[in-house]
Amino acid sequence: MAVLFLSTPERAQVFRRAFAEALPDVEFHVGQAPDPAAVRWLITWAAPRDLARRWPNLRLTFSVGAGVDQFDQSAIPAHVGIVRMLEPGIAAQMGEYASMAVLAMHRDLPAYLARQARGEWQAGTNLPAARRRVGVMGLGRLGLTVIDRLRPFGFDLAGYSRSEKRIEGVACHTDLPAFLARTDILLCLMPLTPETTGMLDAALFAQLPRGARLVHAGRGAQLVTADLLAALDSGQIAAAMLDVTDPEPLPPSHPLWQRPEVIVTPHVASQTDAAEGAAHVIAGIKADLAGHAPPGLVDRGKGY
Amino acid sequence: MAVLFLSTPERAQVFRRAFAEALPDVEFHVGQAPDPAAVRWLITWAAPRDLARRWPNLRLTFSVGAGVDQFDQSAIPAHVGIVRMLEPGIAAQMGEYASMAVLAMHRDLPAYLARQARGEWQAGTNLPAARRRVGVMGLGRLGLTVIDRLRPFGFDLAGYSRSEKRIEGVACHTDLPAFLARTDILLCLMPLTPETTGMLDAALFAQLPRGARLVHAGRGAQLVTADLLAALDSGQIAAAMLDVTDPEPLPPSHPLWQRPEVIVTPHVASQTDAAEGAAHVIAGIKADLAGHAPPGLVDRGKGY
Repeated sequence: MAVLFLSTPERAQVFRRAFAEALPDVEFHVGQAPDPAAVRWLITWAAPRDLARRWPNLRLTFSVGAGVDQFDQSAIPAHVGIVRMLEPGIAAQMGEYASMAVLAMHRDLPAYLARQARGEWQAGTNLPAARRRVGVMGLGRLGLTVIDRLRPFGFDLAGYSRSEKRIEGVACHTDLPAFLARTDILLCLMPLTPETTGMLDAALFAQLPRGARLVHAGRGAQLVTADLLAALDSGQIAAAMLDVTDPEPLPPSHPLWQRPEVIVTPHVASQTDAAEGAAHVIAGIKADLAGHAPPGLVDRGKGY
Repeated sequence: MAVLFLSTPERAQVFRRAFAEALPDVEFHVGQAPDPAAVRWLITWAAPRDLARRWPNLRLTFSVGAGVDQFDQSAIPAHVGIVRMLEPGIAAQMGEYASMAVLAMHRDLPAYLARQARGEWQAGTNLPAARRRVGVMGLGRLGLTVIDRLRPFGFDLAGYSRSEKRIEGVACHTDLPAFLARTDILLCLMPLTPETTGMLDAALFAQLPRGARLVHAGRGAQLVTADLLAALDSGQIAAAMLDVTDPEPLPPSHPLWQRPEVIVTPHVASQTDAAEGAAHVIAGIKADLAGHAPPGLVDRGKGY
C-alpha cells in the first residue's frame, strides 16, 4: 500500500515525517511510485486526466489546497474519492483576511489610502457597524468562521447559500436577489463550480445598493473583471478588496492594480500549513483503512 | 440653571433636542449665555483659560471628544469637575479601527499595497496569529474593547498599564521593558499626559524585537515622528499604521505620507456620535443634580 505525493519538495518533507510517524506501514513516494498498482492514495494540487489508468488501484485523491476546483472531476472516475483539505489554519486565516477586508471596506480604507497618496488630511464620517449590512456568500466552514469573527463588531449580518442554513444572529437567505438587495458589503467565499463561474457580474452588481463594496476571497473565475471595472466607473460599486482575480496572477499592466478604489492581494487569504495538512490527510487515510468516509470527502453531485 | 454648548452647530441641534426632552427645566444656550452666572455646565472641545472668571458658578466641564488632553487642566480650578466623553460608540469604533490595523500589520498589508503600486503579484507567507505577539498599551475602556475584538483571532496578547490589571487570556504588565521585549505588534491607546508625551521614541522602539510593527491610535504628541522615520529606515520598525500624528493635521509635504511601510488615517479611529454623546452629558448633569459624581469624572491627579 502506497501514497504518492505530487506537491512541492518542502511540503513533501513535512508529509514524509508525519507519515513515518503515524502510518509507518504505508509506503510514501514523492513524484513517482516504483509500483503504480500499489498506489492507493494520491496527494496533489492538480490531478492528471489519466489518473485511473496510471494508478489502477487508486482509492482517494487528496487536495493540498482548500478548493477542489482545480480538479477536472469528469476525468476522475466515480470510484475514486476526492477529498478537500480541511485544515483549521485555513479557516482561521480566512477569518483574519475577511475581517481585515470587511473592516477596510466599512472604514473607507481605499479612500484614505488615495488621500494619503495625495498628502491630504481629510476625515470622513464613520458609520456605526449596526448600520452596515454585510452579506456573506458561501456558508461552509470558511463562511461560518468569518461570521464568528465579524459578529462581535455588531454588523448587520446576512448569509447566502444554495441550501437552507440557520446561523445565530445571521439572516440566512437562499434567495439571491433578496440577499443582494440588503447588502452594503458583499463578501464572496463561494466554491468554484460551473454555477458560480462568472457569477460576480454586471447583473449581480446591479442588484446591490448603489455604492456597495465587494470583498472577493472565493475564486478568480467567479468574477467578471470587466464588469467590476465598469461598476467602479459608474459608482455602482464604491470599493473592492480582491484576494483572487481573473486572470491570476494579474499581469503587471492590468488596470485593476491602478484603481484607487481597489486593494489587490495575491491570493494569500489562506495558505495551508504543511504539518496541519499532513495530519488531515493521515486522518483521511486512517478512516479509509477502517472502512469509513474520510473527512472532507467531496459530494460529486454538488462538486464541493 | 443653564448649560452652555460650545461645539459645532450640527452637534448643537442634536444636544438641544435631547436636553429639551430629558432636562426641560435646564436652559440650553449655544455660543454664549445671556446670564453667565446661571451657567452650571459647559459642553466643549476646548476650555477657555479664564473659564472660572467668565462663568463663576460653573460646576462641570464636559468634553465632546474621547480625550481631555486638549484642556489646560492647570487653568481649570479644582472645584470645576472635568468629565470625559464616555460614549459606547467611541469604544466600538476603536475596536474596529484597532482590529483592522492590527490585522493589516499581521497580514503585511503595507507590503502588499507597495507591490500593488508596482503591479507585482508576489505572495509572502502567513504567520499563524498564535505566533504573533500583540501588545496593547493602555488598558482602559478602549483597550479592553480592543482586546475583546482581537481575542477570537488567537493572537498572543499582552497588555501594559501603569496600574496592575487582570484580564482573561492577556499577560498584563506594569513593567514596560518586559512588555516591549515580547511585542511584535505594538498598539498604543494611552491617554495623553505629561508622562506619555513623546514616549514612542527611539529608546522605546529599540526595546521592541527587530522588525516590530506599530499601530498608534493614542495621541499624536506621544510619537516622536523623527524617531519613527529613523526606526523605519533602520528596519527596527517594519511597518506602522497611524491614526494620530505629530503635527496634526500632517502637512501635505510631510515625509510620513510617502513612506510605503506606513498607512496614515486622519484621526478617524473614533468619532463621537452626537445623540449618544448628549445622552452621556445628560446622565452626568442628572447625577450632579442628585449630588453624585458624573460618569467619566476625571481624576485630576492622574489627568485622565
